[in-house]
Amino acid sequence: MGFFSKDIKTLNDLFVHTLQDIYYAEKQIAKALPKMIDKATDPSLKAGFEKHLMETKGHIERVEQVFEMHGEKVKAVNCPAIDGILEEADEVAGDIADKQVLDAGLIASAQAVEHYEMTRYGTLIAWARQLGRDDCAAVLQKNLDEEKATDKKLTDMAERQVNLKAA
Amino acid sequence: MGFFSKDIKTLNDLFVHTLQDIYYAEKQIAKALPKMIDKATDPSLKAGFEKHLMETKGHIERVEQVFEMHGEKVKAVNCPAIDGILEEADEVAGDIADKQVLDAGLIASAQAVEHYEMTRYGTLIAWARQLGRDDCAAVLQKNLDEEKATDKKLTDMAERQVNLKAA
Repeated sequence: MGFFSKDIKTLNDLFVHTLQDIYYAEKQIAKALPKMIDKATDPSLKAGFEKHLMETKGHIERVEQVFEMHGEKVKAVNCPAIDGILEEADEVAGDIADKQVLDAGLIASAQAVEHYEMTRYGTLIAWARQLGRDDCAAVLQKNLDEEKATDKKLTDMAERQVNLKAA
Repeated sequence: MGFFSKDIKTLNDLFVHTLQDIYYAEKQIAKALPKMIDKATDPSLKAGFEKHLMETKGHIERVEQVFEMHGEKVKAVNCPAIDGILEEADEVAGDIADKQVLDAGLIASAQAVEHYEMTRYGTLIAWARQLGRDDCAAVLQKNLDEEKATDKKLTDMAERQVNLKAA
């Protein structure tokens, strides 16, 4: 969220502000994923990250669509949460020498990212409904469903292959 | 995670490192919750945060127990992810003038915290099992179950009361 004072007055302000927050987050994730694709060694993990990069670009477009539907200009605000999560992902990847252990670490980092997005979309959907914007909620739900599916795929991948190789 | 280079060589190193990460996170959350309790106006939200502060103290003890079970000394490492999430929680709370909108924002922030913990405990449990430490996994599972229950309670509270008042 941003550095400003007492300018969130209504639930609508909070909704728009959180939309700006997830917009920033999605854009940072789109920048971070190519590095994760480069680092991943397991082919199915690499392919999974590539697919998720495509999805992330679609998420950015859907968030832009919600801004427009809600009559707000498309805008990003600084989001220390995703910055921290991605900084940590980058650090831990740099700390791991073994490639198979690195894959396990990359999955954990990606799941931390997914969980951040899941919580923000869950909140945004609840607020959109409260504000009578079921149309915006429906668009945001598509992003949430894809984030949840990605998180589940990462869990399956970790449990079936990557952690096994890393152990 | 920490600032060091290539010193995570095995899945066990990664497990211990992530344990140090969640240990730091839980301690920071225990420091942040009293401020959230002060700010919350809805009595059930305030009571929910108070209960979660007690639980968080229990989580810290369980993580200490896992360090001991695993023959590792209790240690925290810097965790930019939780720092970012809590920084954002603090900022957004400072930005909201209306008390009922503030409650809605506090719930969203608390759920972002819960989701971070859920992803880390989920990862730690998977790795503990892979390392043959089902005993450690069982202790960590108790923390995960409580985080999930808290997240669910926050969703229910938001949908039934807080967002309704804020709208």
